[in-house]
Formats: sequence, C-alpha cells, structure tokens
Amino acid sequence: MSNENLVGWMTATQQYVENALEAALPDEQRAPQQLHQAMRYSTLQGGKRVRPLLAFAAGELVAADAANLGRVACAVEMIHAYSLVHDDMPCMDDDVLRRGKPTCHVAYDEATALLVGDALQTLAFELIATPLPGVDAAQQLAMVKLLAQASGHAGMAGGQAIDLASVGRNLNQTELEFMHLMKTGALIRAAVLLGAMCGQPLSAEQSDSLDHFAKRMGLAFQVVDDVLDVEADTATLGKTAGKDEANDKPTYVSLMGLQQAKQFARELYNDALAALAPFGDRAARLKQLADYIVARSF
Amino acid sequence: MSNENLVGWMTATQQYVENALEAALPDEQRAPQQLHQAMRYSTLQGGKRVRPLLAFAAGELVAADAANLGRVACAVEMIHAYSLVHDDMPCMDDDVLRRGKPTCHVAYDEATALLVGDALQTLAFELIATPLPGVDAAQQLAMVKLLAQASGHAGMAGGQAIDLASVGRNLNQTELEFMHLMKTGALIRAAVLLGAMCGQPLSAEQSDSLDHFAKRMGLAFQVVDDVLDVEADTATLGKTAGKDEANDKPTYVSLMGLQQAKQFARELYNDALAALAPFGDRAARLKQLADYIVARSF
Repeated sequence: MSNENLVGWMTATQQYVENALEAALPDEQRAPQQLHQAMRYSTLQGGKRVRPLLAFAAGELVAADAANLGRVACAVEMIHAYSLVHDDMPCMDDDVLRRGKPTCHVAYDEATALLVGDALQTLAFELIATPLPGVDAAQQLAMVKLLAQASGHAGMAGGQAIDLASVGRNLNQTELEFMHLMKTGALIRAAVLLGAMCGQPLSAEQSDSLDHFAKRMGLAFQVVDDVLDVEADTATLGKTAGKDEANDKPTYVSLMGLQQAKQFARELYNDALAALAPFGDRAARLKQLADYIVARSF
Repeated sequence: MSNENLVGWMTATQQYVENALEAALPDEQRAPQQLHQAMRYSTLQGGKRVRPLLAFAAGELVAADAANLGRVACAVEMIHAYSLVHDDMPCMDDDVLRRGKPTCHVAYDEATALLVGDALQTLAFELIATPLPGVDAAQQLAMVKLLAQASGHAGMAGGQAIDLASVGRNLNQTELEFMHLMKTGALIRAAVLLGAMCGQPLSAEQSDSLDHFAKRMGLAFQVVDDVLDVEADTATLGKTAGKDEANDKPTYVSLMGLQQAKQFARELYNDALAALAPFGDRAARLKQLADYIVARSF
C-alpha cells in the first residue's frame, strides 16, 4: 500500500471516529449543559486519534465490524481525553494549551475539568459495556476488564503517579521504561488488542505476537514523543513544546541523548514489526501505521 | 427480625466488605506506593457502608452468593469513595475532614487525590467486569453498564455538576429532586439493583417494584442527609456539619424547612416500603435497613 493510501485511510478513519464520538457524547442542550459542553470541548476536534487508528488497523487482522471498532475506539479515546484533562490541571502539569486550544480548566474552570475527566472515564466504560453485535458477552466482559487494567493503578493512572514522583530524580532506563509502559504503553496496547477482539478470535500464538507488537509500539510511541518534545515547536505539536525539560522530567532524550533515543525508537519499531509476521498481508495497515507513528521522529 | 439482629447483621456485613475491600485494593508495598497507600487510606476503615449494606440486603431477595455480593459492593463503594475524594478537593467543596480523618488531598496532596479518585473509579469497573461465578456474562455486562450509567454524566457526576451550578441559586423542589436523584440517588439505586442481579433473575414486575423502592430510598437518603447536616454535630457525622448552609447550597431543609423535610423523608420511606410487597418475607432485611437509614433523622 502506498503512503498516499495510508493518508486517505487515516483521514477517513479519523472522520468516522469523530462522528462516532459526536454521537456518543452527551447533548450539550441537556442539563447539566456546562458539563456536557466541556466534555465535548475536551474530546471533539482534537488530536491525531492514534489509539483509534491503531484499533481500526488491528481490526483489519480479524475482519472486525466497523461499528464495533468505532465504539471501542471511542472508549479508548475517551480514556485518553480524560487523562489529558486531568493531567493539564494546575495540581498536575498546570498546562494551558492542548491540541491547539486552551485546556479544559482554562476554557471552563477547575471543578468542571475535574468532573469532565471523571465523566469521560465513566462514559468510556458505559460504551464498552454496551453489547457489541456479534461479539460474545464473555469476550466483551474481558474487553471491559482489559480497558480497566490498562487505565488504572497498574496502568495509565499508576504511570502518572510514578511520573509525578520522578520529577527532579534520575531514573535509569529500567525505571523509565516501567513508568512509560504504564503511563502511555498500557492504553496503546489496549487499543491494539481491543481492536483485534472485535472480530474472529485469534489463536494463542497470534495473540502473543500481537501483544508483543502492541507493547513495543506503546514504548516506541513514548520515545518518539520524548524526541518530538525536544525537536518540534509548539505550533506543530498543538501542545506546549519543551515542557519535559522545563518541568525537569526524565525522558529518553535526557537519559540517552537525542540520537540514541531515535535509534532506540527504530529498534523498538523493528522488533514490533517482526512480531506481525504470523498475520501476513492482513497486517499491512498495522505495519503502515506503525511506520507512520515512528517515522514522525525521523 | 429484631433491631439487635439488624445491628449484628450490619456489623458482620461491614466487616465482610472491609475484608473484601482490603483484598481488592492494591498492595501499598508495590509501586507506585504513595498512590496505592492513598487509595487504601481513602477507602478503608471509613463510612457506614450504606451502599454495600443495601447491595447485600437486596441480594437476600434472590439468595445471591456472598462472594459475588462482596465484589459488587466493593465496586459501588469504590465509586462512592472516589467521588468523596474528588468532591473534597479545593476546586470543589474544599473540605478538610472526611470520615473523621483529614481528607485525601490534605493527608497527601492534590495531585495524589486526583489520581486516587481516577484510579478508584477504574478499579470499580475492573472489579465488576471480572467474571462473577454463576452469573451469566450478558447479565454481568448489563451490571457494568448499570454502574456506569449511575456514576457518569447522567448520574452521580452529572448531579455534582448541577450541584456546583446551583450554589447561591434558589431551586424549586423539582429541580432539587432532579439534582439529588442524579447526585446520590443513582448510585444508591444501582447498589440495590446490582445486589439483586447477583442471584436468580427477577420477574419484570419484581424488577419494576425493586426499582421503585431503590429510587425512593435514594431520594430519602439525601433528604435525611440534608436533615442531619443541620441537626448533627461534626463529631457524630465524621465530616464537617452545617456546610451546606455555609456553602449556600440548596437543600430540602432550606427549601421546605426542617419539619417538612423530615415529613417528606417519612413519605418517601413509606412509598419505598410499599414497593417491597411482591417479595414477601425475603424483603425483611431490606425493610429493616430502609427503616434504619431513614430513622437516623428522627
């Protein structure tokens, strides 16, 4: 598949997800209006939708239904959106810019931002617990649990806590990897696995391979993020650039230097791609997308 | 059943739930230690466990398994605990005392309190999505969805948003009821219904009756809470008394006066009890508990 083909697929998928989010979010005409408006503000029209794209690309491995993928993608994206709203709050990263717009607590107020994050998390679980046509109920229950494990104290929220505790400290590579596998990697991994759980069941070998791919890509994504935080400007990122260094946060760049961090991302990417071998041509989209995600940093 | 009998049952059930929470919460020796410690601090050894008690009492309608009830009770109680942690934060009610102890953001810090609430919510969904022995997977998926709907923008979180927006405003009784049905009622109702979903399926008539009971009790609970906020002292409540009036929040007492509010609670209670008729003797515990909850205010 050509790169042009990838861009067309990404645009169409992003639009599909945007429409699905639009439909899944509460109507801002209904009470409580400000909460609903702020939930929409914080979720719609923003971001590259990397997690939804990964879910859809993984869905191609198993010929999954688009509507089901849309629902799963919305759930994962709402977890991501909630984490950004809370992460930007004054007591956390205290950031004013996100996806090129004022952050939620700036556009509204802190209490609203707190409730927006809370309610987006709940809505994610409501969406993923609503029966997906053609998906076995026991399988879907496992999907709910996977999303919860990826998001909670042993996943994303736990990673945030380690991140907070690590400000101003020197972490070694093992500690940094542990933090990032939880903070960013767990939800990236969940997006991939949940997409693949929307279709025909995988064999045990295929599941293991996909899991390996998903874990490596989750880490690669974070390494690339660290590289971009140094190299890109605020306008390109749509969020404040250089803030890791300003906040004295350990990153792959601060740990190993820029060139080495790029090299590490490349190694993770190669390792991830190798794990897709058992899927043959059906993994073409996932390979393209992985290439796109990592190539951002080169 | 005698009242002595009720007290013994309550004490035993509270202890059972305490042990279940203890086992379900993350180990504070594991990283991130402070997050885990603060999650335990905010959940264990506190509160009357009204929602777990309601779930267990409703479980007696359907001869539900105690271990399953324990899991459901933990999930509901973690949602409740998360809401208290976030509600006490400076950007919300800014309270320093909860269950007789410093609130989470006072004992730790605001960032930790934010993450504690987030991670407790996630853990609630992880628990309720873990297969319950003997419960059909489709039924359990419906339980996850029920908990999400009760907690989110159309339930507890939405009620909080309306509460915030109503400070200093005069609400009429319809508006106040709408707020409280969401803020407190939805989760009380969920506790009752989820307990009954752990056992033999109810008939449509029984489900409707139980739902009516649960909704009336949810509202009665809030009216009683408003009464106690005026009548009880801080030591008895274990939280700051008189804070509704201090915060200029509309309550049933401010709307209808103390005696009328008590009378309204009594009417709701009578209406709730009448709805238990189809269950006969199996509803004895639920009746006793309803009596105990409302009688707190007389």
